Amino acid sequence: MNDFTFLSPTRLIVGRNAEEQTGEWIRRYGGTKVLVHHDSMYCKTSGLVDKIIENIRGAGLEVVELGGVVPNPRLSLVYEGIELCRKEGVDFLLAIGGGSVIDSAKAIAMGIRYAGDVWDFFVEDNGVVRAVETEPCVPVGVVLTIAATGSEGSNSCVITKEDENLKRFCDNDFHRPVFAIENPVLTMSLPKFQTACGVIDIFSHSMERYFSDEGVGHDLTDYLCEAIFHTCMDCGRRLMAYPDDYDARANIMVASTISHNGLTGMGRRNNGDWGSHFIEHELSGEYDVTHGAGLAAIIPAWMKYVYKDNMPMFLKWATRVMGVSYDYEHPELTVLEAIRRLEDFFRSLGIPTTLHEMPDVGIVPEEVMYKMARRVRVTNPDGTVGTLKPLNTEDIVCIFRLAQ
Amino acid sequence: MNDFTFLSPTRLIVGRNAEEQTGEWIRRYGGTKVLVHHDSMYCKTSGLVDKIIENIRGAGLEVVELGGVVPNPRLSLVYEGIELCRKEGVDFLLAIGGGSVIDSAKAIAMGIRYAGDVWDFFVEDNGVVRAVETEPCVPVGVVLTIAATGSEGSNSCVITKEDENLKRFCDNDFHRPVFAIENPVLTMSLPKFQTACGVIDIFSHSMERYFSDEGVGHDLTDYLCEAIFHTCMDCGRRLMAYPDDYDARANIMVASTISHNGLTGMGRRNNGDWGSHFIEHELSGEYDVTHGAGLAAIIPAWMKYVYKDNMPMFLKWATRVMGVSYDYEHPELTVLEAIRRLEDFFRSLGIPTTLHEMPDVGIVPEEVMYKMARRVRVTNPDGTVGTLKPLNTEDIVCIFRLAQ
Repeated sequence: MNDFTFLSPTRLIVGRNAEEQTGEWIRRYGGTKVLVHHDSMYCKTSGLVDKIIENIRGAGLEVVELGGVVPNPRLSLVYEGIELCRKEGVDFLLAIGGGSVIDSAKAIAMGIRYAGDVWDFFVEDNGVVRAVETEPCVPVGVVLTIAATGSEGSNSCVITKEDENLKRFCDNDFHRPVFAIENPVLTMSLPKFQTACGVIDIFSHSMERYFSDEGVGHDLTDYLCEAIFHTCMDCGRRLMAYPDDYDARANIMVASTISHNGLTGMGRRNNGDWGSHFIEHELSGEYDVTHGAGLAAIIPAWMKYVYKDNMPMFLKWATRVMGVSYDYEHPELTVLEAIRRLEDFFRSLGIPTTLHEMPDVGIVPEEVMYKMARRVRVTNPDGTVGTLKPLNTEDIVCIFRLAQ
Repeated sequence: MNDFTFLSPTRLIVGRNAEEQTGEWIRRYGGTKVLVHHDSMYCKTSGLVDKIIENIRGAGLEVVELGGVVPNPRLSLVYEGIELCRKEGVDFLLAIGGGSVIDSAKAIAMGIRYAGDVWDFFVEDNGVVRAVETEPCVPVGVVLTIAATGSEGSNSCVITKEDENLKRFCDNDFHRPVFAIENPVLTMSLPKFQTACGVIDIFSHSMERYFSDEGVGHDLTDYLCEAIFHTCMDCGRRLMAYPDDYDARANIMVASTISHNGLTGMGRRNNGDWGSHFIEHELSGEYDVTHGAGLAAIIPAWMKYVYKDNMPMFLKWATRVMGVSYDYEHPELTVLEAIRRLEDFFRSLGIPTTLHEMPDVGIVPEEVMYKMARRVRVTNPDGTVGTLKPLNTEDIVCIFRLAQ
């Protein structure tokens, strides 16, 4: 086990009608003037946003509203939010929505008291991801309506600079939300596609951690990751048949938070591999693909490309999680069968596992593969990405070909 | 899944020599004058306490020292600590040790700014456990040297009023430690017996949560509990053979914190059953038995007495955790075999699973069983304890007989 520190201060408030406690919790965390941030879509038209604003005003607090967040949230709206908050003297940000809204709120929270350009925090330093020290953030709270990114409890924030199709992230413990209100009922009306992409995203956050290291030394987080995998597979399948299954919704919602708050990465190298994620970020930056749908193609391709470099972990996963019988004569067949079963699982959620099947992608030209591969955020000083097998541009293109 | 809130703000700092960061972290949490609390035993004689005191002074902070904590920590020392802290103007408590030292520090932290008798917080209200609202606690930090109680991240505190042999607990979110420094190397010199009792205690904290509820609705925490069970069984057995196995020590140490910070109980009834715990508390109150050793006898007896009331959960545990093949003709035999394997596991740690084998206990007279049973802390309005099967005095005596 590698040395680590772990901090997850986010208070989870889970249950039916939990959003009725929103104003009260903002007040307890010292908020007096609140920016309510949302996507102007379902949460607004369903009346949820207005209901929560009423609840916040009922707690004696002032409200400023900013909608318009889109999937792969845009830097331009972040700038707009920062200006608005400065002008209005906002001291608390409430995100109502999923990862895009939360990330947009986090970026605004970082920018309000920062004298420079908030994009500074998202830019690579010499090609290597750097630790970001910011001015103290304005506190962020969340009413979660989509279980997927785990942004409601994580230190992650992903923003797209739309004029350059650049999707970049910033990790910062200071912008972890102070609370996450999770009412599973709010996720019942999601389209099946959104639910499915969320389940794949949740699965992927522990997958990135699980495969980051050798097969020994982290028994506890191996099992914790496996808890997330099993929950995603059990409850994800149930939700395709029964979208109103409260318990399945609740388990997926809490799994979303737990899978990405750092718990399943404790003591593992770099807190995860993240190769698949950064590769997928370029795919969704280029084609505006939903993150979870992109991962359904990238993850199996990545696995096929790298599994020989960490047979112990892939065999552990194949037998303990995917239920494959160990092939003692040809261990590799054990792993390949497990990858096949993972593709079956993604397909059972209605998500294709190849790029050419995706409506927004299709056949990807070689030059676009290279363009995306060259843009993938590097995480190692030698210009590669990932820990299990550090990947260079050629490796990444091979993975795109396998995903094709 | 039941509605719940979850908060675990404790920062984990895990690794070799992690205790060298103690002074720095106390400073970051605002401490200026620190009570260093310990048991005057190994941690003191090994020089660890003095090394850490030097480290704290090196960070520019003042130190007051109070040793003398014993297993099943005593109320009298808590009183002494409160007086000392008031006199010296202490604003931070550092516990160096295991659960006893941490609980003693938590009780002191609660008492310093409380005008009444700190024992008020440990007394039952009308026979029912009550939620305790205290004055804000003085912050507590921990350098952990025994992995067992999980007190380093939990809201629990157990104190014994020695003149009445009363062992009582107080749950309070305000006294959760602000940080827990965990250097697995510090646990390598523990006697085998202490290591074993710790592993059983860690196992029990998720066991109490696992069996608290029906067999459906909490897939995620079922799997999270199972992660703790597997880690305890894998790493506990390894430590009996190889006490210096760093990774096994590290996994058990982190499992200690995770198993009792509330994570594995999210969404379950009353956050757990706790029948076995309260029954064992009376055993160790009466005979001064180490908590983990007492649990090794009480848990299997409790299981044999209650399993028919929750066959789904016991069958899930038997097949998924204990690796028993499902007996389709006689499902009960599946469970009984699993309980037998659990006893085997406890015995593989060198801990007997009956009271008559325990050096400090032996044959327990019926009248002592009744005396202990009548003292067991009740958790239900009807005077019973536990959620899976609410137990009255006669039930508890039956469990003592099964454990005999």
